[in-house]
Amino acid sequence: MTAGLPSRLAACLGAGAVLTEAADVARYAEDWRGLYHGRPLAVVRPSSTAEVAECLRLCAEAGAAVVPQGGNTSLVGGATPSDDGRTVVLSLERLRQVRDLDPIDMTMTVEAGMTLASAQAAAEAAGLLLPLSIASEGSAQIGGVLATNAGGNNTLRFGNARDLVLGLEVVLADGAVWDGLRHLHKDNTGYCLRQLFVGSEGTLGIITAAVLRLQPGIRARAAAFCAVPSSEAALALLGRLRQWNAAELHAFEYMSGLSVALVLHHIAGTRLPVAAADHYVLIALATSVAGDLDSALEEPLAEAMEAGEVIDAAIARNEAQRRAFWQIREEHAEAQKRAGASVKNDVSVPLSRVPDLLRQAEAACAAAVSGIRVAPFGHLGDGNIHLNLVQPVGADAAAFLAQSEALMDLVNGVVLRLGGSFSAEHGVGRLKTDLMESWRGGVELGLMRAIKASLDPRGTLNPGVIFPPSDAL
Amino acid sequence: MTAGLPSRLAACLGAGAVLTEAADVARYAEDWRGLYHGRPLAVVRPSSTAEVAECLRLCAEAGAAVVPQGGNTSLVGGATPSDDGRTVVLSLERLRQVRDLDPIDMTMTVEAGMTLASAQAAAEAAGLLLPLSIASEGSAQIGGVLATNAGGNNTLRFGNARDLVLGLEVVLADGAVWDGLRHLHKDNTGYCLRQLFVGSEGTLGIITAAVLRLQPGIRARAAAFCAVPSSEAALALLGRLRQWNAAELHAFEYMSGLSVALVLHHIAGTRLPVAAADHYVLIALATSVAGDLDSALEEPLAEAMEAGEVIDAAIARNEAQRRAFWQIREEHAEAQKRAGASVKNDVSVPLSRVPDLLRQAEAACAAAVSGIRVAPFGHLGDGNIHLNLVQPVGADAAAFLAQSEALMDLVNGVVLRLGGSFSAEHGVGRLKTDLMESWRGGVELGLMRAIKASLDPRGTLNPGVIFPPSDAL
Repeated sequence: MTAGLPSRLAACLGAGAVLTEAADVARYAEDWRGLYHGRPLAVVRPSSTAEVAECLRLCAEAGAAVVPQGGNTSLVGGATPSDDGRTVVLSLERLRQVRDLDPIDMTMTVEAGMTLASAQAAAEAAGLLLPLSIASEGSAQIGGVLATNAGGNNTLRFGNARDLVLGLEVVLADGAVWDGLRHLHKDNTGYCLRQLFVGSEGTLGIITAAVLRLQPGIRARAAAFCAVPSSEAALALLGRLRQWNAAELHAFEYMSGLSVALVLHHIAGTRLPVAAADHYVLIALATSVAGDLDSALEEPLAEAMEAGEVIDAAIARNEAQRRAFWQIREEHAEAQKRAGASVKNDVSVPLSRVPDLLRQAEAACAAAVSGIRVAPFGHLGDGNIHLNLVQPVGADAAAFLAQSEALMDLVNGVVLRLGGSFSAEHGVGRLKTDLMESWRGGVELGLMRAIKASLDPRGTLNPGVIFPPSDAL
Repeated sequence: MTAGLPSRLAACLGAGAVLTEAADVARYAEDWRGLYHGRPLAVVRPSSTAEVAECLRLCAEAGAAVVPQGGNTSLVGGATPSDDGRTVVLSLERLRQVRDLDPIDMTMTVEAGMTLASAQAAAEAAGLLLPLSIASEGSAQIGGVLATNAGGNNTLRFGNARDLVLGLEVVLADGAVWDGLRHLHKDNTGYCLRQLFVGSEGTLGIITAAVLRLQPGIRARAAAFCAVPSSEAALALLGRLRQWNAAELHAFEYMSGLSVALVLHHIAGTRLPVAAADHYVLIALATSVAGDLDSALEEPLAEAMEAGEVIDAAIARNEAQRRAFWQIREEHAEAQKRAGASVKNDVSVPLSRVPDLLRQAEAACAAAVSGIRVAPFGHLGDGNIHLNLVQPVGADAAAFLAQSEALMDLVNGVVLRLGGSFSAEHGVGRLKTDLMESWRGGVELGLMRAIKASLDPRGTLNPGVIFPPSDAL
């Protein structure tokens, strides 16, 4: 059935929009981390919603599986084709227009293939803020950002990608187009379909455009770097700031003493702005009101020191200092890479359980691997911790990585007992499907399967993603 | 099949929890406005999730339809049984515990039958805010509030009911219980099921408990009442306030000159705090920081007057004045009732289209009924206008009401052309099902039908709600 499909697709899209040569498809066939290598039947690059619809219609007719692909930066293999040579990769990269931007409504309609950074820039040019920021924003595309419900640093104030979506345009498995591009802040006329597609990782339909909520542009920022005595103290400080600065508080990032020590050791030019401690937090405020925000940090931080929640604190006195504070946070991944092999966990728990998470995970890992460096950091304001594990100093990297699965299981065991999630930000993709049965099985997975079967009865949309491997049998 | 069902239910729940006598079921069989009168087979009042599950299992076995009922205040007949005598009304009123409240995580788990006002009080007792406020909050129950995605006055800052939900517990059509009571701010492990149940009006499952996000408690409030030259000026003022007070801005309410005049005429003790005008707005700020918020209004309002966006403004100087400002807004429904018969429209459009909506709807209605009093007001910050139409002075009420449907069609015609919604806040219920085919038909209604069929294949959950009447044939 799939034999003549590439030529039928080419007849519809034009030959240049359909790639089949190994050299041309290579960069679409591998995930960003190089964990997955696929062999697609073809890569198609439609340039309009109508063309996406026609592609899906032709693929459905041929019974071919379709893997939608944006920036290919999910880190969990959610956009990589299988290696059976019968899968079509549908790249959204040529749908990259801002269809409209309404400064009064504070909304914009963006096509799926636009990068997040370009969409941010379009909003900023209109004096507005698209309040979503992730490390991969220069490559990540809006369609993928929504299909995976991306998170990042600013979710404390404005939520995850899901919370910014007012409307969607989606092409369904059979090529039908759902035009749900509404610009409405209140609309109670039936099921909330948009939130079903957001986070569904391309398994229910292909997002081609979205209406996003914007915010007033940022005119002032402030940052503080704090040494705190414990993770409990960090949470108390967060509670205090929420009362003082609920509105301006854009980020509240946790860094363990060990993870900061790795940054100071491995990244040239970094310097600790406070006294050394076992726990640090980075506080970021931002507001649309021009003026001085630093003073808004002084009173709550003074109170927090008085209360014993903060050992030492530094408020950035200029933009260079603010960037230097953030550099320490942002170089965590690079520093851990230089420190040797590491095992990454992107987990979340209720905020009040973060101290238990940190203590129990550290104890479990230390008992398993002598000398292991437990170096957690992350978005404490969301209960989202990157619970990373760095190999012992001088140990054999390969031997350490051979224990990856066992170590992830140890961490996940703690997370599960604390009512958490094994994937806070990045989604399930192909990487974590084996966890779905034990974590989300029973009634919940039954609901997901029923919905999948009703919207994609032939299972051609991104097979192998989200659902347990046994579902494919 | 349904003949022995009440006794089977009574055997399971205890006789006192199953009502069948006409006198006992009367208050559950009629909607709040008295538009719908049903005749249920029985009213069941389970007191635990397990009992709800057992009820649904028994009803499924008997093929009986189930209508979940909370406070019964939807205004669109979403919780009223049909009159076929074979429907079971399932009241959630006995599930009314706060299961937990975590001040660090700032979340609470509440059972479905608790009133919104009681849930607000529980949050307040912990120094926190449950930021949802609707006129019926003393009767409306959490389950119904979520099943209908309630809106209200404060959504500008914290969103609709949907935006407050982190987790749900839902009993499905066959009695299976989905335990999705997660307290996670980030969790990307499969489809976002909770948002499918929120707003589904009891047609996909029965919500028995929810995890809700809380905010820091309010410590200071401010309010201003403004006369503005046009609805465009009101929007410009909103944009200005969003830059100045994005965080504190909790409500931005519009009132037409005519609708305020009706309040001043019919409600004793009300007094206009500014010069008379054709358009007014009420601005409410609130914050968790103790102190004076009034000054935060002075500068933006001065700028707005300079820019010609505001004709006259009054800032409430004390709590009594603030309440007096709000009284004018809150007495709109009562004043319109005293002014004669009226036709109500709960519509929304993109914010930038509100001026078109007001002008075009007024022109269309004035052309249709000479002397009609078009008295719009509502949540301008959300683009949600209660576009109410009051009978001409001295006209016959019955003759005016005979034109209700034609007038609603006129208003809805304008709303549809502006990309709006025929039900911003209240849902579809039984009242507006006939609009679904023309407004949400085609692919969108097809998706809703597919989801309904997959989760409730026998169609026993709240039949007659949301879907077009022809679906029942």
